[in-house]
Amino acid sequence: MMNKQVRLASRPEGLPNDRNWSFGEGPVPEPGDGEVLVKISHISLDPAMRAWMNEGATYIDDVKVGDVMRANTVGEVIESKSEKLHVGDTVQGVLGVQQYALAKPKELLKIDASLAPIQSYLGVLGWPGMTAYFGLRDIGKAKEGETVVISGAAGAVGSVAGQIAKIKGCRVIGIAGGPDKCRYLIDELGFDGAIDYKNENIRNRLSELCPKRVDVFFDNVGGEILDAVLSKIAMRARIVISGAISQYNNPRFRGPNNYMALLTYRARMEGFVVFDYVKECGEAAAEIAQWMAEGKLKAKDHIIEGIENFPSAFLRLFSGEKLGKLVLEV
Amino acid sequence: MMNKQVRLASRPEGLPNDRNWSFGEGPVPEPGDGEVLVKISHISLDPAMRAWMNEGATYIDDVKVGDVMRANTVGEVIESKSEKLHVGDTVQGVLGVQQYALAKPKELLKIDASLAPIQSYLGVLGWPGMTAYFGLRDIGKAKEGETVVISGAAGAVGSVAGQIAKIKGCRVIGIAGGPDKCRYLIDELGFDGAIDYKNENIRNRLSELCPKRVDVFFDNVGGEILDAVLSKIAMRARIVISGAISQYNNPRFRGPNNYMALLTYRARMEGFVVFDYVKECGEAAAEIAQWMAEGKLKAKDHIIEGIENFPSAFLRLFSGEKLGKLVLEV
Repeated sequence: MMNKQVRLASRPEGLPNDRNWSFGEGPVPEPGDGEVLVKISHISLDPAMRAWMNEGATYIDDVKVGDVMRANTVGEVIESKSEKLHVGDTVQGVLGVQQYALAKPKELLKIDASLAPIQSYLGVLGWPGMTAYFGLRDIGKAKEGETVVISGAAGAVGSVAGQIAKIKGCRVIGIAGGPDKCRYLIDELGFDGAIDYKNENIRNRLSELCPKRVDVFFDNVGGEILDAVLSKIAMRARIVISGAISQYNNPRFRGPNNYMALLTYRARMEGFVVFDYVKECGEAAAEIAQWMAEGKLKAKDHIIEGIENFPSAFLRLFSGEKLGKLVLEV
Repeated sequence: MMNKQVRLASRPEGLPNDRNWSFGEGPVPEPGDGEVLVKISHISLDPAMRAWMNEGATYIDDVKVGDVMRANTVGEVIESKSEKLHVGDTVQGVLGVQQYALAKPKELLKIDASLAPIQSYLGVLGWPGMTAYFGLRDIGKAKEGETVVISGAAGAVGSVAGQIAKIKGCRVIGIAGGPDKCRYLIDELGFDGAIDYKNENIRNRLSELCPKRVDVFFDNVGGEILDAVLSKIAMRARIVISGAISQYNNPRFRGPNNYMALLTYRARMEGFVVFDYVKECGEAAAEIAQWMAEGKLKAKDHIIEGIENFPSAFLRLFSGEKLGKLVLEV
């Protein structure tokens, strides 16, 4: 039994290419005392992984060249030398792009595979869902009747953020790429409007769809979209900095030139990191699961099979060729 | 008796030049019922005036081409057809770059010329002082023991903000242009350190002077200085957007490319407009005057004489050839 692994071979400039990855196989490791062996079933593909590939600290350490690429995963315990986890338990942990991994129980979260498909714990019930939940609640502070705009609205974070804003009684406008995604936002997720940034003038459409301007902007994208929304913010608006996927592959990362709108509109732009909310995640996931059970919140996973397809699957995060949470099935 | 006036002749691109201004004289107007005639003694020169010269709304309307240039002023009532103000009263109001102006009492604030030199009501006891006071209190929320960095630190707003932060028990580092201003900040205003952005590497000096990084950044300048400080912010830092004087003459206004530091450090960037605090200004001015009487806070006015020198005096705001509050004495 061998363990297929994907390692960071070199640091990319711009979009990662094949030379940045190396494939290898090693023996499946043996758990030591207090450890378990996990057979990974699903690997999460998240925009933040691109930032981890760059040298220098962001909110967590970079991945070192030669190391197995860091990734969030779910899987099953197949050997245990710990009393805290047993063979057959399903777990979530940051175990990397590989088929098997050793871990200590404190590095893993035991998950309930009967409540939802196991890969949901990488998406709507995992970090993306939590990012949407806490970002909207604590940073955006969206209130009933307010206008909320979401960028990357058909993605793993944006689709959940938009639906939670609808549940809270907000007017919700999503920005996404292409007519299919825009239809999905309105027809399936119940958004009040959608803007196709690939084919429409964002500023004109914002003016049409947000006659009272924008109270909360939940931004996953950055770049020109951030500047466009800044030009339409309402008094005391809150801009939630959740990500900047349009800029992660730009060696000349650009910020919002329109930031003086913050002064004109007495507005606030604020960042957050979902890892700060670990203690509250259980409750948040339970609330989201309840909304799903009631049919108020839907989630889509875009599953690609085969660990060997990791490099091309990863690029779909940036090309937008996916709908919902992108997951690699091992 | 004639009334000399400076009007906006055309909108500038970049730094204003002589073609953007026109000089004229008109008869001194007669007050109608309920009006007073003010003889203006001092005209304030403020960076925000540059923004008012551009087409399109910021937080107040732009100045129209052909109109007397808008400016804050102080002066004396010399004729009154209102019971609310009397001949001899000293007043502050936005009366424009001219020698005489009509106004209604509700557009004027009666000031106490015995408490401080009359031009102080354009500086430390006026909008710049209030901007420092409320920006630090409500947006920066600077607490004892925190590290506060101020850009434009030798200017009308920055010098007051830094001294108030010192009074609140903060470690205060100022950024200013040239060794003279830096010496002034440390030797006369009691700052803990100063960075000469014209001759020193801002990032290196920030690392030296802010070993615990930067909790509050009170930014009057924008541009590269904002990016440099963003690279050194502490967890949960607050960036007060007070102005962006480095960019007001830049037709390609640039924002902070480093804004994702807000995410990494769970930080906030927020704008405000001092006009929102009108009701609290009396109390704030009294507190600042008390600090001045106790020798805890100093203010310098840089006075230039002659309304005909308005265009060249105005440019000193951007060249930095001034120390403290720039005022034109009519």
